[in-house]
Amino acid sequence: MAVGDKPLPKFATIQGLKIGVANAGIKQTDRPDVTVFELIEGATIAGVYTTNAFCAAPVHICRQHSGEAATRFLLVNTGNANAGTGEPGFITAHQCIEALAQKTGTVANQILPYSTGVIGEPLPAEKIVASLDAALADLSQTNWSAAASAIMTTDTRPKGATSSLEVAGEMLHISGISKGAGMIKPNMATMLSYVAIDAKVSQPLLQRLLSEVNAKSFNRITIDGDTSTNDSAMLIATGASSLDIDSLSDDDFLLVKDALQALYIELAQLIIRDGEGANKFVHVKVIHAGTEDEAERVAYTVAESPLVKTALYASDPNWGRILAAVGRAGVKALDVNKIDMRINDVLIAEKGGRAASYTEEAGAAEFSKEEIVISIDLNRGSEEATVWTSDLSIEYVRINAEYRT
Amino acid sequence: MAVGDKPLPKFATIQGLKIGVANAGIKQTDRPDVTVFELIEGATIAGVYTTNAFCAAPVHICRQHSGEAATRFLLVNTGNANAGTGEPGFITAHQCIEALAQKTGTVANQILPYSTGVIGEPLPAEKIVASLDAALADLSQTNWSAAASAIMTTDTRPKGATSSLEVAGEMLHISGISKGAGMIKPNMATMLSYVAIDAKVSQPLLQRLLSEVNAKSFNRITIDGDTSTNDSAMLIATGASSLDIDSLSDDDFLLVKDALQALYIELAQLIIRDGEGANKFVHVKVIHAGTEDEAERVAYTVAESPLVKTALYASDPNWGRILAAVGRAGVKALDVNKIDMRINDVLIAEKGGRAASYTEEAGAAEFSKEEIVISIDLNRGSEEATVWTSDLSIEYVRINAEYRT
Repeated sequence: MAVGDKPLPKFATIQGLKIGVANAGIKQTDRPDVTVFELIEGATIAGVYTTNAFCAAPVHICRQHSGEAATRFLLVNTGNANAGTGEPGFITAHQCIEALAQKTGTVANQILPYSTGVIGEPLPAEKIVASLDAALADLSQTNWSAAASAIMTTDTRPKGATSSLEVAGEMLHISGISKGAGMIKPNMATMLSYVAIDAKVSQPLLQRLLSEVNAKSFNRITIDGDTSTNDSAMLIATGASSLDIDSLSDDDFLLVKDALQALYIELAQLIIRDGEGANKFVHVKVIHAGTEDEAERVAYTVAESPLVKTALYASDPNWGRILAAVGRAGVKALDVNKIDMRINDVLIAEKGGRAASYTEEAGAAEFSKEEIVISIDLNRGSEEATVWTSDLSIEYVRINAEYRT
Repeated sequence: MAVGDKPLPKFATIQGLKIGVANAGIKQTDRPDVTVFELIEGATIAGVYTTNAFCAAPVHICRQHSGEAATRFLLVNTGNANAGTGEPGFITAHQCIEALAQKTGTVANQILPYSTGVIGEPLPAEKIVASLDAALADLSQTNWSAAASAIMTTDTRPKGATSSLEVAGEMLHISGISKGAGMIKPNMATMLSYVAIDAKVSQPLLQRLLSEVNAKSFNRITIDGDTSTNDSAMLIATGASSLDIDSLSDDDFLLVKDALQALYIELAQLIIRDGEGANKFVHVKVIHAGTEDEAERVAYTVAESPLVKTALYASDPNWGRILAAVGRAGVKALDVNKIDMRINDVLIAEKGGRAASYTEEAGAAEFSKEEIVISIDLNRGSEEATVWTSDLSIEYVRINAEYRT
């Protein structure tokens, strides 16, 4: 189950970045589960990671290594998260990295590791190490689609986005992939996402760019409110083209940032559209809030309410559950008699109660659509926030009750 | 579906309190849906109510009336929550109260109203008013069981608890009922609960007693994290016996408080045992926390995680999901390498990773039980908290997807 038809795009090639995949047989044996990214010398990389205190060993290592040396390789495995694995988790992660360093003539801290899959089981380092020769032999600039599949776990389809634009007379190419379908409430980042551009960007500016676009994309989605232990979003600038982002005019810089923001929103939304058991793609938009934080809190409370999500699943215009969620979002001095609510273009609630013009038929027609915009107008300020989510279906429960079996 | 077999107890009679029920046909027509409590003159009453900003008209009226006059009647209806109904909600609630006042020779502010059911639909006041004669004719001291059924909504069974104890040479009788199965995360109170004792208690002391026992009972349960718009818990002291709680010795007062605490925990747990689609009854106990607030936050994060709850439903010892929930609970400077975790008596995680002694078989055996204690030892202080919850089943989704149809 997934919302809408979203085939992979034809990825723009990013000069200076090669990708190889291999099948290590970590959990499944029928498709590649190891991915290696090779960055050209001089490339810069920025990352944002999970805020979960139980973050996985690879997340710790990424944070450490990216501050120590120029990154040359990323090593990603699915099927095992290497989280909740204590000290042995670090040892196995280092075994994989050191094997790759030896094979590529680099040193260990030029390599960043990523793991995703089941939490709490020992990482089978020997299987990953045994797959590295095949992954390195596979390195190519045109392997974005293969990587989009190789990083999947419970995803039902690969996720990617790409764009090319002219900036200051030069072409800028952007390609990116993401994965994730459950345990999705990123908090500073999402499950896994890799985006690359072929321009030159200093590391501090790249980090700032990533933080800003991430805040309004991966940090605005939720499937089940469960922040993963392994979330990582990486932005790579290979510097292979002659475009230098640091020296752009303000207008041209904004062009680049807007293109990145749009691509990150697309990648984030793809995760929700493929959310576990998802039948609906839902925008929860809160407007006229006192602060952006308050808007985000209300939007998340609605987006994570099991009762709202089951009503969405049932296409039942049970809008009272949405109001109840707004009411418990913890907004100080909220005057409920000022609140209006729309589903798509239909006004449902006005001044805290049912709108005079509302009919059950009109509500049911909108709730039955595959894409739904819930707009909540707090009428108390000028800030807003939109969070994207999916419904809570019988299929979601089934997938998560059967995940390990 | 409900966990375990929990028939109603044989309720102790509470002198000074009569209960009558009637069938108003508000939503269903096959069972009583209106309940009237009559309090003897001189009885005291204490209440705690929902913190949801969208709280229902009857909750507003309860708060106002209980401060204005000595309460003589409670009027409860199921099938319609009279929440999200704006100004018309107040008008219909007052119509019901005023009709009851007229029939009983009291004034309106001596009556407290309660509604539970669907949010956002107009309250059919005329149906409730038409049922009052029958409810008044039914008034009796022995109607606790009938009331336990008449206040149900999606509950699959009535909920009650009772106890009798000797205090300072006198007998004290306590009887109580509760209802609720979904939209359960009380915040200062639960869906609906009515408890009565036959001793004399001043209103301030009664309110303090209720607040204290409520904090560790109804405020420690969660089914879906959705705080209702109508939660109300009421404690009545009829003063019909010669026992005066205000003048007890400290030891005797503690006896009374302990008896009330035990009864409130029983009523709260009954709600979870009958949680929508519940197959498991789960204690989430956090020990050695730095503060009680921190212990409660960790316990609630685990208890509300859809991934933990679906694993419980599947009897799958996927304990990594529990650690992941602990990690995102927002505890400052949490050292995950100190955390131990047990399921019932089986040590699963030690120092943040899988315990050396743990086997999948041992874990699976505990997870397959109907009653499960998850103990999380943060090893950073001396505070603790226990929250009670249920699993997230396919049946939960089905019930809430079909609630209005």
